[in-house]
Amino acid sequence: MNERPAREVDAESLREPPGPRADLRSDGRAALEWAASYLERVGDLPVLARVAPGEIRARLPAEAPEEGEPFAAVLRDLDEILLPGVTHWQHPRFFAYFSVSASEPGILAELLAATLNSIAILWRTAPAATELEGVVLDWTAKLLGLPDGWHGHIEDSASTSTVAAMMAAREATGRNLVVCSDQAHSSVAKGARMLGMELRRVAADPELRMRVDELGDLSGAAAVVATVGTTGSASVDPVPAIADACRAAGAWLHVDAAYAGSAMVCPELRWAFAGVERADSLVVNPHKWLLTPMDCSLLWTRRPEDLRAAFSLVPEYLRTPDAEDALSLSEYGPALGRRFRALKLWAVLRCHGRRGLQEHIRRGLALAETFERWVAEEPGWELCAPRHFSLVCLRMEGGDDRNRELLARVNASGEAFLSHAVLNERFVLRMAIGQASTTEQDVRRAWDALRREGAALAG
Amino acid sequence: MNERPAREVDAESLREPPGPRADLRSDGRAALEWAASYLERVGDLPVLARVAPGEIRARLPAEAPEEGEPFAAVLRDLDEILLPGVTHWQHPRFFAYFSVSASEPGILAELLAATLNSIAILWRTAPAATELEGVVLDWTAKLLGLPDGWHGHIEDSASTSTVAAMMAAREATGRNLVVCSDQAHSSVAKGARMLGMELRRVAADPELRMRVDELGDLSGAAAVVATVGTTGSASVDPVPAIADACRAAGAWLHVDAAYAGSAMVCPELRWAFAGVERADSLVVNPHKWLLTPMDCSLLWTRRPEDLRAAFSLVPEYLRTPDAEDALSLSEYGPALGRRFRALKLWAVLRCHGRRGLQEHIRRGLALAETFERWVAEEPGWELCAPRHFSLVCLRMEGGDDRNRELLARVNASGEAFLSHAVLNERFVLRMAIGQASTTEQDVRRAWDALRREGAALAG
Repeated sequence: MNERPAREVDAESLREPPGPRADLRSDGRAALEWAASYLERVGDLPVLARVAPGEIRARLPAEAPEEGEPFAAVLRDLDEILLPGVTHWQHPRFFAYFSVSASEPGILAELLAATLNSIAILWRTAPAATELEGVVLDWTAKLLGLPDGWHGHIEDSASTSTVAAMMAAREATGRNLVVCSDQAHSSVAKGARMLGMELRRVAADPELRMRVDELGDLSGAAAVVATVGTTGSASVDPVPAIADACRAAGAWLHVDAAYAGSAMVCPELRWAFAGVERADSLVVNPHKWLLTPMDCSLLWTRRPEDLRAAFSLVPEYLRTPDAEDALSLSEYGPALGRRFRALKLWAVLRCHGRRGLQEHIRRGLALAETFERWVAEEPGWELCAPRHFSLVCLRMEGGDDRNRELLARVNASGEAFLSHAVLNERFVLRMAIGQASTTEQDVRRAWDALRREGAALAG
Repeated sequence: MNERPAREVDAESLREPPGPRADLRSDGRAALEWAASYLERVGDLPVLARVAPGEIRARLPAEAPEEGEPFAAVLRDLDEILLPGVTHWQHPRFFAYFSVSASEPGILAELLAATLNSIAILWRTAPAATELEGVVLDWTAKLLGLPDGWHGHIEDSASTSTVAAMMAAREATGRNLVVCSDQAHSSVAKGARMLGMELRRVAADPELRMRVDELGDLSGAAAVVATVGTTGSASVDPVPAIADACRAAGAWLHVDAAYAGSAMVCPELRWAFAGVERADSLVVNPHKWLLTPMDCSLLWTRRPEDLRAAFSLVPEYLRTPDAEDALSLSEYGPALGRRFRALKLWAVLRCHGRRGLQEHIRRGLALAETFERWVAEEPGWELCAPRHFSLVCLRMEGGDDRNRELLARVNASGEAFLSHAVLNERFVLRMAIGQASTTEQDVRRAWDALRREGAALAG
């Protein structure tokens, strides 16, 4: 590099920092106003974006500008160009997949985290971020009623948390087989493919729970992944029996409670989580049902030394004098660079408090119970799986094609957005309730749209 | 679940959305004020946090509050409890590892991304986020002078980008060996361990470049990882010769330019990137040297179908009618859930413009040249590797222990924060320049601290 000089830089300009390209106070206020007004009006927008593939791209220029533009231009184009291409996860009638909510304390904490730009590659590079992460994981473990002493840290998504647990299991057991039910999340298969592990899928019973009698020989199993709250129907695998089988075989038990785990904040729901206390590792995503903006996936383990042994790899340039005493969380997962995700979870836990989090979960359950009752009482409609947590699986009379068409029509109406699953070889609609702003009227409006479109289809 | 009813929820409360737990306008303004004032005063704080392991944790309560607290309490504790535990990556005298900057447009975009909470698991769940990601990757490819037509997407960190590239290479070649130099980033070894791939480390020459004559037989190699800008000394592997060897052997060439790649925005520096245009995949991290808040790692490939074949796994519940026409970026990497990272890169590219980005890079280079000259002219000090980009490796006379002590003293002073490497078996200090706010006076102050502490040590 020193063979050729860089282009001349004005010496004077090196003596002053360059001016900011956006003003945090004035541009920031405009951004806040946009954000606040977005959340006020989001319920009036079509839930599912009404654009064709390529349409947003076609509205954007082919290259970056030569000269810097004001931040106001970014805000304007966000509104005019991008917004029509946004599917509104913050919409009160977003009922697809699992309904999530980014609450205000978490949103503001992301602003602060980006401002600090702490990167927790090592303890010393971010002591506050590292230790707060430990603290909020301990807080959350208590809120969920988990055993004392589990070690927790934050990953970006359940995909990463689960692959990390599977890797620890592989390294700890020296075995290469992962076992899960045919209802387990696709991330288990993706993780097995990455890790070069063999995957065995165990059949589920008619209520979509892993059949323990089908587990088979576990003597070569590194891990069994049990799910509490499957993606299809939120079914609950029989964790106590799976834990028994894992113990007998020396296999690692990983519990995927990415969606449903947040419900453990309510003691009256913990019976559904029996056996989770015996897991070797557990993933729960507060960015799903606990009011935290994406991304925030919590991975706990009772075997932190096994997780660390799997991932620790400290090269010379990262060795520090304090490394002996201090915990560097990058030793517990795939990534080295880690952003300050704990801040938003801390803000959410503090501003909502235990009571606020419980109210949020109970509200979702009550709305789901209400909707379930309406479906049960309606001629020509049926519930297609036991309702678990805040997910209701339903379909109208007629075959799969009719229900597929029904889903397409409701989603195209913009009034509500639902997704689907195939359960026991039948196409069913999934009504996933959980957005913080959803009211009974929103659920009613989705139900009205379903019945209206259903009636039109039934002719 | 329906066996036991949830705790009673007041029916009336289901008819209204619950109130927000923080007000985006008023609490948001306080958060902005905190952020703006933090960036104004960060240069007056000690760069490296002055806390002992466990100290921050000890100041925090053992559990989450029962009742929600005002957001102001979070801001207060951020200031009073957490701030002393923050190592300030936004400090103008942060010279450790690679110096990064979160610029204001990127910070505000993170607020907006958290507000929208778009989750790009599929095209239809986030058309704007998905298509903007493609657009800003194309914009950046043009800015860096990359060949037309490469496919790009965003991962959280270079660790993930590199493991994704290695996985694609393994699947595409059916081979299991990864080759890199002994100067390559630790993420290559971590990724190989995850993927169950064999790793061969090739010796570097005295200038820390991979020795092509030591590459050995590549007939079993899935991939060679070449580095442009190594972590230790920012050395540049001979990419054209490595590309020749890869082509001859049918191996995938992955180029890790996580830090230095941003410098390609300046055409006069592109000679240092010769051969990169022949890579099968390339990682560049705008969260390092391109003014974007953590996390934003760009992975391009000329072989998108191989990347997709490695990672695509679309279960029934994610199948959509538009899937045939539309790109879902979760099929190109390990995670399913993907947050709206493109928004901050878009804001940075637009508000800085090509010219602003070039000025930022040139400024860092000019400061590094200045510092390099001071060291070269100072008796008792030496430069320990050719300077590449904005990283200067140096040491004072005396042995490793003296330099280790020198580093500890300067870092303890709080005036500057540097890190180290072991190059050619000698301990050297790394002065990594790149923070947007760094001025010549900041570099001078670090140099004064180095010489002062060095003189004290030399007695």
